[in-house]
Amino acid sequence: MKTGTRISLFLAILVVTVPTMAAEGEHPRLILTKAGVQQIRAELGTVPLFDATLKSVKAEVDAEIEQGIDTPIPLDYSGGYTHERHKRNFFIMQKAGALYQILDDEKYANYVRDMLFQYEAMYMDLPLHPKERSYARGKLFWQCLNDANWLVYVSQAYDAIYDFLSAEERQTLEDNLFRPFADHISVDSPQFFNRVHNHSTWGIAAVGMIGLVMGDDELIQRALDGIPFDEIDIAAKDNDGGFIFDKDGRAGFLANLEEPFSPDGYYTEGPYYQRYAMYPFLVFAQALNNVKPELEVLEHKNGVLLKAVDALLALSDADGEFFPLNDGQKGMSYQTGALVTAVDIAYHVGGQDPRLLSIAEEQGSVLLDDAGFSVALAIRDGKTQPFEKKSINLSDGSDGEQGGVAVLRYGNEDLTLVFKYAAQGLSHGHYDKLSFSLYEKGDEVLQDYGLVRFVNIEQKGGGNYLKENRTWAKQTIAHNTITQDETSHFEGKYEIGSQHHSDLHFYDDTNGDVQVVSAKETNAYPGTQITRTMAIIRNEGLEKPFLLDIVKITSSAKHQYDLPFYFLGQVLQVNFDYVTPSGLSPLGDQNGYEHLYVEGKGTPASDNAKFSWMANHKFYTLTSASTSSDQLLFTRMGANDPEFNLRRDAAFLIRRQDAKDTVFASIVEPHGSYSPVSELAVNSTSRIRALEVIYDDANYTAVSIEDLAGGKRIFLQSNTDASVSRQHQVKIGERRYEWTGPYYYF
Amino acid sequence: MKTGTRISLFLAILVVTVPTMAAEGEHPRLILTKAGVQQIRAELGTVPLFDATLKSVKAEVDAEIEQGIDTPIPLDYSGGYTHERHKRNFFIMQKAGALYQILDDEKYANYVRDMLFQYEAMYMDLPLHPKERSYARGKLFWQCLNDANWLVYVSQAYDAIYDFLSAEERQTLEDNLFRPFADHISVDSPQFFNRVHNHSTWGIAAVGMIGLVMGDDELIQRALDGIPFDEIDIAAKDNDGGFIFDKDGRAGFLANLEEPFSPDGYYTEGPYYQRYAMYPFLVFAQALNNVKPELEVLEHKNGVLLKAVDALLALSDADGEFFPLNDGQKGMSYQTGALVTAVDIAYHVGGQDPRLLSIAEEQGSVLLDDAGFSVALAIRDGKTQPFEKKSINLSDGSDGEQGGVAVLRYGNEDLTLVFKYAAQGLSHGHYDKLSFSLYEKGDEVLQDYGLVRFVNIEQKGGGNYLKENRTWAKQTIAHNTITQDETSHFEGKYEIGSQHHSDLHFYDDTNGDVQVVSAKETNAYPGTQITRTMAIIRNEGLEKPFLLDIVKITSSAKHQYDLPFYFLGQVLQVNFDYVTPSGLSPLGDQNGYEHLYVEGKGTPASDNAKFSWMANHKFYTLTSASTSSDQLLFTRMGANDPEFNLRRDAAFLIRRQDAKDTVFASIVEPHGSYSPVSELAVNSTSRIRALEVIYDDANYTAVSIEDLAGGKRIFLQSNTDASVSRQHQVKIGERRYEWTGPYYYF
Repeated sequence: MKTGTRISLFLAILVVTVPTMAAEGEHPRLILTKAGVQQIRAELGTVPLFDATLKSVKAEVDAEIEQGIDTPIPLDYSGGYTHERHKRNFFIMQKAGALYQILDDEKYANYVRDMLFQYEAMYMDLPLHPKERSYARGKLFWQCLNDANWLVYVSQAYDAIYDFLSAEERQTLEDNLFRPFADHISVDSPQFFNRVHNHSTWGIAAVGMIGLVMGDDELIQRALDGIPFDEIDIAAKDNDGGFIFDKDGRAGFLANLEEPFSPDGYYTEGPYYQRYAMYPFLVFAQALNNVKPELEVLEHKNGVLLKAVDALLALSDADGEFFPLNDGQKGMSYQTGALVTAVDIAYHVGGQDPRLLSIAEEQGSVLLDDAGFSVALAIRDGKTQPFEKKSINLSDGSDGEQGGVAVLRYGNEDLTLVFKYAAQGLSHGHYDKLSFSLYEKGDEVLQDYGLVRFVNIEQKGGGNYLKENRTWAKQTIAHNTITQDETSHFEGKYEIGSQHHSDLHFYDDTNGDVQVVSAKETNAYPGTQITRTMAIIRNEGLEKPFLLDIVKITSSAKHQYDLPFYFLGQVLQVNFDYVTPSGLSPLGDQNGYEHLYVEGKGTPASDNAKFSWMANHKFYTLTSASTSSDQLLFTRMGANDPEFNLRRDAAFLIRRQDAKDTVFASIVEPHGSYSPVSELAVNSTSRIRALEVIYDDANYTAVSIEDLAGGKRIFLQSNTDASVSRQHQVKIGERRYEWTGPYYYF
Repeated sequence: MKTGTRISLFLAILVVTVPTMAAEGEHPRLILTKAGVQQIRAELGTVPLFDATLKSVKAEVDAEIEQGIDTPIPLDYSGGYTHERHKRNFFIMQKAGALYQILDDEKYANYVRDMLFQYEAMYMDLPLHPKERSYARGKLFWQCLNDANWLVYVSQAYDAIYDFLSAEERQTLEDNLFRPFADHISVDSPQFFNRVHNHSTWGIAAVGMIGLVMGDDELIQRALDGIPFDEIDIAAKDNDGGFIFDKDGRAGFLANLEEPFSPDGYYTEGPYYQRYAMYPFLVFAQALNNVKPELEVLEHKNGVLLKAVDALLALSDADGEFFPLNDGQKGMSYQTGALVTAVDIAYHVGGQDPRLLSIAEEQGSVLLDDAGFSVALAIRDGKTQPFEKKSINLSDGSDGEQGGVAVLRYGNEDLTLVFKYAAQGLSHGHYDKLSFSLYEKGDEVLQDYGLVRFVNIEQKGGGNYLKENRTWAKQTIAHNTITQDETSHFEGKYEIGSQHHSDLHFYDDTNGDVQVVSAKETNAYPGTQITRTMAIIRNEGLEKPFLLDIVKITSSAKHQYDLPFYFLGQVLQVNFDYVTPSGLSPLGDQNGYEHLYVEGKGTPASDNAKFSWMANHKFYTLTSASTSSDQLLFTRMGANDPEFNLRRDAAFLIRRQDAKDTVFASIVEPHGSYSPVSELAVNSTSRIRALEVIYDDANYTAVSIEDLAGGKRIFLQSNTDASVSRQHQVKIGERRYEWTGPYYYF
C-alpha cells in the first residue's frame, strides 16, 4: 500500500498528541476512546469551543430527559410524528452516551439504557413499516436507509455505555435488538445493503459499527465486503430509478470507497449526497482506525476519504453552501452536522490542516469526541488559518477518467464558475452534460435549479422526491447547456447515461486573470459533438471579471439547438425587438419543455443579442454572438405544475434551428451595483461593445471581444490538440497568430 | 404659540451644551455655526463616530479633488452622465465646505470656490434643460426638483466658505448664479414652487437657505410664504397626475409644514416620500432656528417636525426599511443619508432622546456639523439606549381627522401589521383603502407591492415612474384589500379619491396579546360600506401570534368582492380541489386585472378554505371562513407587461360573487420554520382547526376560533359604537355575552 506524505504526517502527529487506538476489549472505542476521554476530562473548562458545545448539548439532552422517553409504533413518512421522534431518539442517545463518558454522570447512561430496552421490547415483534413506497422498507422507518441511520448513531451510544451495562443486559440487547436490526438492513435487504450507493454506505457503517462494539467479526466482515449474494438482478432499480446492483457485483465498505470516489475525492453523486454519505464513511473509518488499525482504511486509495473532505469544501460557494449539482437541495452548507464531523475527523486524523480550523470556527461547534476535542484545542491554542478557496478541477469516476467538475474562482470568490462535465452521478444524476452555474460571492447569477423536493416537509409528497424532479429537474432543458431537438441527453435514459461521461479537453488556472476549462461531449446526442470552453477573464478596461462561453457543435445532421441561461431577478433591457403573448402557453409537451411558459419571443437586431438584468442589487449583461435566424425566448417555469412544486424562475433562451455545425459564443458580464438606500446605480450598463466569432474550423475557434473603450481582445482555442507544449499557428484575415498550448488570449 | 415639554427640554439643554445661535452677520450659520466649529475643532480625535465620518468624507472629497472639476453642459435624464455628475458635484461641494470649516484647510475652500465659479460662468446662458418631460423643467437637471436639491446643498457650501471669499467674489456669485438660480425655481416656476408637495419643500428650502446665507430677507420671505400668484389653475396636474395648486392657495414653508403633516407627524404621501422631504424640512428648520430663532419654526404646530422624525422611524420594519406605502421603493431604510440628517438634527434640537443614538450607531455615520457632533459626542459618552419600536396609531390629515395608519407590533417585531386607512396621499397615493401588509421580523409575509419604478436606473424609462405604476401598482387589486366589481376605489380617479379618507372605528394596543385596529370606508364604492377589523392575537396554545382579519361589507346592491392575499414563496398545501389551466390568461382586462394571470381556480370543500405556504424558511397558513359559492384563485403578476416591469409575484384570491352584505373572516397564522441545513421542518402545519362567523348583524359581528388542542376563543366587535365605556350585550345561540368597550376576546 502506498502511503502519501499526508498520511505519514498524520501518523507522526497522532502518536505524539492524541493516543486514540483502542486497546483490545476496551470501551468506548468508536469515536471516543478511553485515552481520549481521560484527556477531555482533564482539560474540561479550558477549551472554549468544546465547552460551549458541551453546554448546549447538555441542555438539549437534559430537556429531552425531562420530557421522558417515547418510542412510538412506527407509522409515518418523514415529517410525520413517529418518523421524527425515532430520528430524534437516535440523535439524543448518541449525545447522551457522549455526555455519560465526558461528565461521568450515570443519569445519561440510565437514559440510554432505558431507551434501548424500550426498543428491545418492541423490535422483535415489529413488522415491516406500514408505508409501502420504499424499494427496501425498514422497521422503525419507512425505508432501511433511516433504520441504518438509527444504528450508526445508536452503536455509538451503546459503545459509550457498554461498560456501564451488565453482561446480561448486553446479551439481551445484542440478541433481541442489535443483531436482528443489523440483519434486517443487510442480509434481509440485499437490495439496500449490497450496493455501491450512499444508501448502502449507511447500512455498511451501521452493521460495521455495531459489529465493532459487539466485537463481532462476522458483522465487521459483512460491512467490509458486503454479503455473498449469487443471483443479483442487474436490471433492478430503486425508487429514484437508479440501478440497485453494481454490474461487477462489488459491495461493502471498500467497494463503496473505491467506486463512487474519484482519486481527487469527488463523489459521483455530487456534494449534496457526498455530504450525506461522508458521515458514515468517516465515522466508520475513524472507528476502524481505532479498533482495526491494521486495515489502514484511511490510507485506502491514496487517502481518498480525507481528500474527499477537501473536495467537498471546495464544492461550496462563498457562503459555504454546496453547489446543487444533480439532486441537491439548495441551502445545504458546511454548517451541517455531517460537515462538523467531516472537518473534525479530517483535522484529527488527517494531518491537522490549520485551515480546517477556520471552518470549524464558522461552524461554531465540534464533535463531543476525540476529534472534536483536537479541533477545539487547536483553536484555543491559536492555530487557525484562513480557508481560502481556490480554483480546482476534480476528476470523476473511480479511476478519475470519467470527466469531472471544474470550479473556477476569481479573487476571493468574486466570481465563481461551476462547470460540470462529469459522469451520470448514479440515480441522483441529471442529464446536464457541459452545464454550468455562476456565482458572484455567495449569490447565484445563473442558477442550477437543484432538485424538486421539499426534504422532510410532509405536505409536499411526504418530503420525498416529487414527480417534477423527473419531468423537470433532471431534464436537460432545466440546465444551462445545449438541448438538441427538444430531447434530453441520452434520451433522458439512465441506462444510456450511466454508460457515458464527458471528457476534459483542457484545464488551466495558472493565470488568475484568464482561467479556462474546456470539455467535450460526444455521446449525449449520437452523431453530435459538443465542445464547451468556459473562461473567467479579468480585463483591464472592465470593472469586474466576466465569463466567456464558447459552445462549438459539430453534427452529422441538421438539428435545433436550445441554449438557456437561467437568470434570477428582473429584466432591464434588451437590444432586439420581441413580442409578448397575450396569454402564456408551454414551450413544448415533453422532456421538461412542458414546464416552461414562453413570456416573450424575438429575433436579433444585430450580430450581438444583448440582454441585461438586475439581481441582488447587481447588474448583469449577456452578450451573445447571434445569427439573424436565431430565436430569442423569455421563458418561465410553472407550466403543467398542478401542485405548485416548481419555482417561477426565468430563463433567457437562445434557439438556433436547422443548424448542423455551429458556435454559440457568449459573454456573461457582471457589472456595477444598485443601492435602494442611496438609490445610486453604478455602472448599470454593459461595457462590451461586440463579441464576434472570427474563426471556426475543425482545428481552431476564435472570438474577438471589443469593449466600449475600444480595447479588443482575441481568444483562440485549439479544438483538437490540448497539449501544453504543442505549437499552433492560424491565419485569420490578414493576420497570422502563433502560440503554444491549448488556448491563447491577448 | 404652545410649547410642549419636549421643546422646553430642548431649549434648556441647548443653552447649556451647544451654543448654536448664529450671531448677526456671522458665517457659517446654517448647519454649522462658529461656536459649533470651535467645539468640534477642540474635540477632534476624541469622538470616534465623528472622527470616522470625517475620515471617510475626507477620503471621498480628496479623491474627487484629485479627479478635477467637471461641470458638463446638461443633457441627460437621471442615471445619465450629466445628471449624475451635477448631482455628485453638489454633494461633494457641501462636504468640502464642511471639511474646510472643520479642518481649516484652504484646499477645500478653493475647490468649492473654483467649482462655484465654473457654474457661475455657465449658468447665465443656460437654456432650459433639453429633456422636455417635466411639468417644471430645471436648467442643470431635467426637473426643477433636482435643481432645488443642488441649491439646498450648495447653500451650505457657500455658507462654509462665505468668509473665505472676497466681497467681490460673493457679489459675482450672488448676482450671476445664486439669485437667478433661486428665481428660476421659484418665481419662474410657480407650478413647482407654490405647491403643498414634497417637490416644493425642496424649492422652498433652497430659496430660503440661500437667502439666509446671503442675508436676503426677500428670498427668506418667499420661502416662508410662497410667492404671490393671483391666477392659479386648480385643475393643473404634474407628471404624476397630482394637482399642482392647493385649492386654498396656500404655499411656502409654513403651509408645507401645516398641510401634509398630521398632528402625529405622519406625512400624507407616506414614509418613502417623507424620508425624501425630511432633509429640506429639517435642514432649513435648523438653519432658521440658528438665524431666525424668533420664528420658532421647530415649535410650529406643536413641534410637528420633530414628531415627524419619530413617526418616520416608527414606519420601518425590523430591519429599518420603510413600509412601502403608496409609491414607495422597497429597501429604502433609515440607513439613508436623509435619515442621518433627521436623526442627528432631531437629537440635537429635539430633547436629546437617547434612543435615537442607537439608530445613529446603526447608521454608522453622522453629519459633519453641529448636530452630528452632538450625536457622536453623546455616543462616545455612553448615553445610547435601545430603540424599541412599539405599536402606534398615526392620524393622517393636517387636522388629524383624515384617517391614518396603524402599526401593530407583537413582541420585538416578531409580527408586525401595517394597516392603512388614510387619505389619498396626494399624487403618490394608491387606491388601497383598508389595505394591509404583514411582516415577521424584517421579512414580508403578505406584501404591499410598492411602486413600479427603478429609481435612477436609466434603462427602465429613465429611472422614472413606469406605465405599470398607474395600471398596476396604484390599482386596488394590487393590494390586500377589497375590490368591488373589478373596479378600483373611487373609480381609480384622483379627483374623487383626494376628497375622501377612511375613518378610524377604534384602536387598542393596551393589551399586548390582543391588539386591535378597526376602520371604516364608505366612499370608495358609493352605496357600499366596508368595516375592516384587524387584530394581532397571541393565544396560549399556539406557537406564534397570528393575524385575525374581519372584513364586514354592507351594500345597497349585489356585487362581486375580491380579496387577495399577496403571499411570497411557495405553495405547500390547500384543503380544497382546484384546477390548473393548460395555459395562462389574464384575470380581466382593466383596473390592474389585466396584469394578473390565473394559475389555479377552485371552490371550498368545507366551511374553511385553508392555504399553506413557505417563505424565507418559515411556514404560514391562511384559514378563511368560506361559503360554498366562493371562488379561490391563484394569481400571478406579469400579464400585459411587455417590458418586464413587474415582479412575478403571487396572490391567493378569494372571490365572492352576487353578494350584498357579507363578512370575510380570515386568520393568517405564522408557524414553525425550516432549515435547509438541518433539513428539519418544525411545526409545519396549521394549528387552527376552524374559524367561524358565529354572529353578524348591523350592531355586532363575532367569530369563533378553534385550535387543534380544542381551545375555542371568541372575538366579538361592536360595529357601530366604539366608545371605551359603552356596555354591550348580545345573545349568540343560547349564550349571552356581556362586555364593555368596542371589542371582546376571551
